[in-house]
Order: sequence, then structure tokens, then C-alpha cells
Amino acid sequence: MAKSETSAQAPHPLTLIPGPVEFTDEVLAAMATPSQSHVSPQFVEVFGDALALLRQLFMNTDKRAQTFAIAGAGTLGWDFVASNLVEPGEDALVLHTGYFADSFADCIATYGGKPTQLKAPIGDVVTLDAITNTLKQKKFKIVTITHVDTSTGVLSDIKSIAALVRAISPETLVIVDGVCSVGVEEIRFDEWDLDLVLTAPQKAIGVPAGLSIFIASGRALDVFRARKAPPASYYASFAKWLPIMQSYEANKPSYFSTPPVQNIHALLASLKQILAVPLADRFAAHARMSDRIKSTIASYGLKQVAIREGYQANGMTAVYLPEGVALSDLLPRIAKRGIVLAGGLHKEIATKYFRIGHMGVSVTDEDREDFDKALAAIKESLAEAGYAI
Amino acid sequence: MAKSETSAQAPHPLTLIPGPVEFTDEVLAAMATPSQSHVSPQFVEVFGDALALLRQLFMNTDKRAQTFAIAGAGTLGWDFVASNLVEPGEDALVLHTGYFADSFADCIATYGGKPTQLKAPIGDVVTLDAITNTLKQKKFKIVTITHVDTSTGVLSDIKSIAALVRAISPETLVIVDGVCSVGVEEIRFDEWDLDLVLTAPQKAIGVPAGLSIFIASGRALDVFRARKAPPASYYASFAKWLPIMQSYEANKPSYFSTPPVQNIHALLASLKQILAVPLADRFAAHARMSDRIKSTIASYGLKQVAIREGYQANGMTAVYLPEGVALSDLLPRIAKRGIVLAGGLHKEIATKYFRIGHMGVSVTDEDREDFDKALAAIKESLAEAGYAI
Repeated sequence: MAKSETSAQAPHPLTLIPGPVEFTDEVLAAMATPSQSHVSPQFVEVFGDALALLRQLFMNTDKRAQTFAIAGAGTLGWDFVASNLVEPGEDALVLHTGYFADSFADCIATYGGKPTQLKAPIGDVVTLDAITNTLKQKKFKIVTITHVDTSTGVLSDIKSIAALVRAISPETLVIVDGVCSVGVEEIRFDEWDLDLVLTAPQKAIGVPAGLSIFIASGRALDVFRARKAPPASYYASFAKWLPIMQSYEANKPSYFSTPPVQNIHALLASLKQILAVPLADRFAAHARMSDRIKSTIASYGLKQVAIREGYQANGMTAVYLPEGVALSDLLPRIAKRGIVLAGGLHKEIATKYFRIGHMGVSVTDEDREDFDKALAAIKESLAEAGYAI
Repeated sequence: MAKSETSAQAPHPLTLIPGPVEFTDEVLAAMATPSQSHVSPQFVEVFGDALALLRQLFMNTDKRAQTFAIAGAGTLGWDFVASNLVEPGEDALVLHTGYFADSFADCIATYGGKPTQLKAPIGDVVTLDAITNTLKQKKFKIVTITHVDTSTGVLSDIKSIAALVRAISPETLVIVDGVCSVGVEEIRFDEWDLDLVLTAPQKAIGVPAGLSIFIASGRALDVFRARKAPPASYYASFAKWLPIMQSYEANKPSYFSTPPVQNIHALLASLKQILAVPLADRFAAHARMSDRIKSTIASYGLKQVAIREGYQANGMTAVYLPEGVALSDLLPRIAKRGIVLAGGLHKEIATKYFRIGHMGVSVTDEDREDFDKALAAIKESLAEAGYAI
């Protein structure tokens, strides 16, 4: 990557939270694309290319699957799942590793599904044994996994869970909430036989918030096509959007609702940058940076919220505050040093920890030295707040 | 307004369709705002200011009402109405002046409401007598009006219809689809006693697509609060978003789903430009340009789709092709001259007409001469296509 991606940007605090992340100049320039008709040949090509590159990001080549990019947010991805893949009264198994599983379950219930939550202790994952036992008790239409829970930094082993589900309950759809994982954690959509992975642009994809992005498998789309009830949402209906995505990817315009032209341009710009290097290298770079941050944090005597080695996110770190240091004291001290970190989100421990996001250009462009600055700011601020390292 | 708003933009065809419209440099620069945390004091202020200025755009001062700006699209506004203000089995009266009423009715039915459509002939409005008769037949929870139907350019008299509904059925909520009207047609939300006006940014608000924007009255919010069933959508739930909007407007961050930071910056930039001159002046400028375009089109011997004088949109014109000229021949000729116009959208007549959008900076900055160029391009292209004016 070029040396100074942010050279064209106005001076601003470094946003090192688990999304939105820092953006490259090219992505921000694409956000400022002059007006373009949403059905113009120019835009049709851009949208089609973005959908095709999303397949590469998900390591998908099976054309029965379809990628989607729709004006909205990561949250809207839950509506797509709950209103198209679950019918009223059907059971959904929600694996809980933090805040976001509660919300996903709430969404499923909104559309008439019956969520059963399998909860891990805070900072831990649900065991394969627990999943096995639950799957044997009854038939679930879907199983949802939060790949990385942004509230805790817990990383779930979606490959093993997907294999387990397929072995015990072959028809159950495997749904991955990849909001804080797509672009930083390995996801082999076809090879791991996943059914839907949803995400948002403002994390490891490196594009401003404003899109709901997902890929649905041929199996998932067949389940949708076999629905007895019509989709339970209008805006989040596969029936409305599937033909639109197929059409744009086939280089033909089509209309249901005006797509966010500039956000799609930005998505394409970022996907081109991401896919210019092998994905394995990208994941390795994030893993190295994550290791460095986690070991430095440990050297400060601080503990992670995600307690189990091997089940810690590579794109973020959730860190318990030391005794006697308040969040409301520490974060402003770090902010004064030009670094924006995030507070806690998991409601049971929200005031007891802070979060560092390490995704995207701040990681891949080491010349920026974003995390040298951030780790120094954390260390100095802790000292100022009275914590001796 | 400054003389050359597009000076910083790369050369591009003029997009003169009924949305997306041309954007000002300031709006595009705001789209490229460097990363910012969605809960940072800087962004909280921007979001709060945008929500407050939206009130001005809707001529609202009653604080029981609330403005909303949410990642999505104009279409998503229908989901907000249908899933929060109508309960399963309740009746909705949908006034039909083109393509978009069919879609709104489809959305209402998706969430269990019972839409009754009152259809005008193509190009005409529903009469007040017809509305009166229908309202007297049964109790409707809501009446929906497409202020300007983007498929036909028909302008409905929402002030008179709202007064009629209030007189005959005081509890019925008056819902205005203002996607192609907010920012160009007069809308006095408080004074006309409206209950919800929804819109999208890429038309007369002059901001790239990617937001669902609306205002809901105190009465509408009370109806929502009195629901027996929970909201029928998750992402489009007032229960989720109302506290968020109230919080940001009160200058406090709050989280349900990450807002589209850059799009909100762009919204604020445009609202500041719009509200720098009195709204009455803005509406008058659009009316003058609309008159000029419509009379020029008439002087070419062409007819509008919107047949009734006084019920023609001020922000767009839908024009029937002359005998012997095909849309697929004419639009490319106009495009070769650097002007992008839109084809037809109303399915019964889609190939028989084209549409010109005249909203935003292309209208308010006469020095751009966008419509001198467009009208000349239309005239020349018609001649080239064999139509003698």
C-alpha cells in the first residue's frame, strides 16, 4: 500500500475504535463522487464490480450464492435473516457471546421466530458440547453465530460450529454475524458451507457506515424460495432485492429503491485496495498487530474481556480497566493525545472496560504508526490517572 | 449562493433526473469527512444540528414531533409507517397517483395492514369528492398521499386533503410520501396538521442517496405508543430509533445501530445551504424554473404526463415522446450532449415518456445554466431523431 493514505485528509483525531475505522484517501474520494444516475451504465458497472469483488472477500465462487449491498446498516442484516429465512413459529438457535446476540434474538422474535439463546459466560464462547446437546433436542431452522462480538472481543470458531451443525442437523442454516470480522478474520464461505454472512462496511472493510452487506448461499436462497409465508419485511425482503443484485451483477440496471451511489463507489474503491494483496496476507497482518496490542496490554498488567486464548478477535481488543481508574477519566486523557478509543458496550460490565479497534488501513499501513501512538497514549494516560505500570 | 458550486468536481455528465440530482461541492466534501466516532462529541453535535434543521425544513416548531435521519432509503420510510402506525388488520387508504402508491400499498400489506387504493387516471389526482366518499364508508387508521409521484410528476394538494381528512375522520393519521417534494414544494407540517412526512436525500434536499428521512407528529407518536402489538419491523422500529433521535438532538450520544456519519455530515451541509435563504424564495425559484421548462416543452409541441394545471410538480416534468420518436433513440442523443435524463417508470406507459428532474443546485444556481443546456440538448436531439419542432 502507498505510504501515506491519509495525506489528503484534514487533521483529525485517530479513530481507533471497533468501527468506524480510519479510511483511505481513495475511499473518501469515492464518497465524494459527483452525482451519477443509479441506472447509468457507469454506475451499473461500479455496482456490479463491487458485488463481484464481495464474492472474493467471502472466498465465494459458487454462483448459486448471491452477494448484496443495500443502503442501511449492519443491523439491517438481522432483519434480512429474520424476515426471509425464518417463518413464524420456527425455532432459531442463537449462540450468545455478548451484547449482539441479545439484539439478534430480539430481531428474530420481532418477525415471529422463536429464538433460543445458548449463553456463554462473559468473555467466553459457547462450547461445541453445549451446541451438540441443544441441536439434538429439537430442529432449528437457523443457528446464528456472532463471529466477533464487538462488545467483548470474543472470537467464535465458525468453521467448527458450521461443521458440527451440518453433521447433526444438515438442513439447519448457518448464519454468521460477521460485522466485526469480515475483512479481518478468515471466512471461507463456500468451503465451510456457510449459509449467510452479514456485515457492515465501517469495520474491516474500511468504508463509511451506511450499507448492509451480506452473502446468502444457494441453500439459503432455496429455503427462502420455499417459504410458505411471504417475507415479513418490505425493505428487507429477498424477493425485492435478489433480482436487483442479480441484475446489476449481470451489468443491467434495475429498480426497487435508489441505491446509495456514493457509498457503493467507496465500497468498490476499498475492495480493490483490500484484494490487491492476498487475503491470507491481510489476515496475517491483522493477527500480528492484534498479538502485539494484546501482549503490550498484558505487559501493562491489564486483562482482556475475552478470556480464552485462541478465541480472541484479531480486529479489536476489549480491556478491563485497572482497579481505581475510571473510564470517564481515562478515555478523555487518551483523546487529548489525539486517539479516540471506545468505552464498554456489554451492559453488565459497560463501565469496567474499554475497547481498541485494530482494523483496516491503520493496521495494513504500518508507516502510519497509528498503534505506536495509541499504545503510547494508553500508557501515558494510565500513568496520569494514577496507575503505575 | 456562490457562483460555481461544482468547480471542485471532476467533469461529469449533468444528472438532471428526478433524483439523484447534482450536488454542491460543500455537500460532496462533507461526504468525504475523515473518520469520526459515531458517539464523539463532534458527531453528536452534527447529528443534533441536522435533526434540528430538518424541523425548519418541515416548518415544524412543535417539539412533540420528532425528525429522524436513518441509514437506508426513501423506501424504508414506508416500512416505518407500515410497521409502527398500522396494526395487523387495520385499514389504510392509499391515494394513487402513480407507481409509488402501488409500492406503498404492498409495504402496508406486508406488515398486516389492509390497504384500499383510490386510483386516479394516469396523470391526474384523486378528487376530494372521491376521498370524502371513501372516508365516510369506514374508519381508516392512516391515509397516504404521494405528494409528488416521481413516475408521473403529478402533484397532490396535501393541504386540502389533510384538512378534509381531519374534518371527516379526526383520528386518521395523514401520511405524506414527500420523496420528490420535500425541499421543493411547500410543506407546513405543523400548520397543515400532518402526521408523518417521509423523504429521501437525493432529490430536493441535494444529498447523496443513503438515508431515510422523516418527521412524525406528536399524534403519530402517541398512536405508536398506544399500539397493542409490538412494532412489526426491527430495523424500522420507532421503539428503537425514537430514543436515539431524541438523545442526539439533546446533544447526548446513544446507540442502537451505527449511523452513517458521512451522510449525516452531508445532510447538515446541505440543510445549512438550503436554509440560508427563506424557504419561500426557494420554492418560488423552483416554481419559476418549472414553469420555464414546462412552457418550453409545450412550445416544442410535447405534452406532459401530469395533465391537470395546478397539479404538476415543481421539481420534475414527465414528458410524452412525440409520435415516431423512441425513448431508446432520444435519451442516448441527449446523453451524448452531456445531459442525463430519465426514462419512464409508470409501468403502463414506461416506454412512452421521459422525465426531467429540476431540483436543487441546478435550479438555485442559475449561473450554472444547467437547464439552458438541457433544453437545448432536448431540442437538438428531437430534431436529430426526426421530430420537427
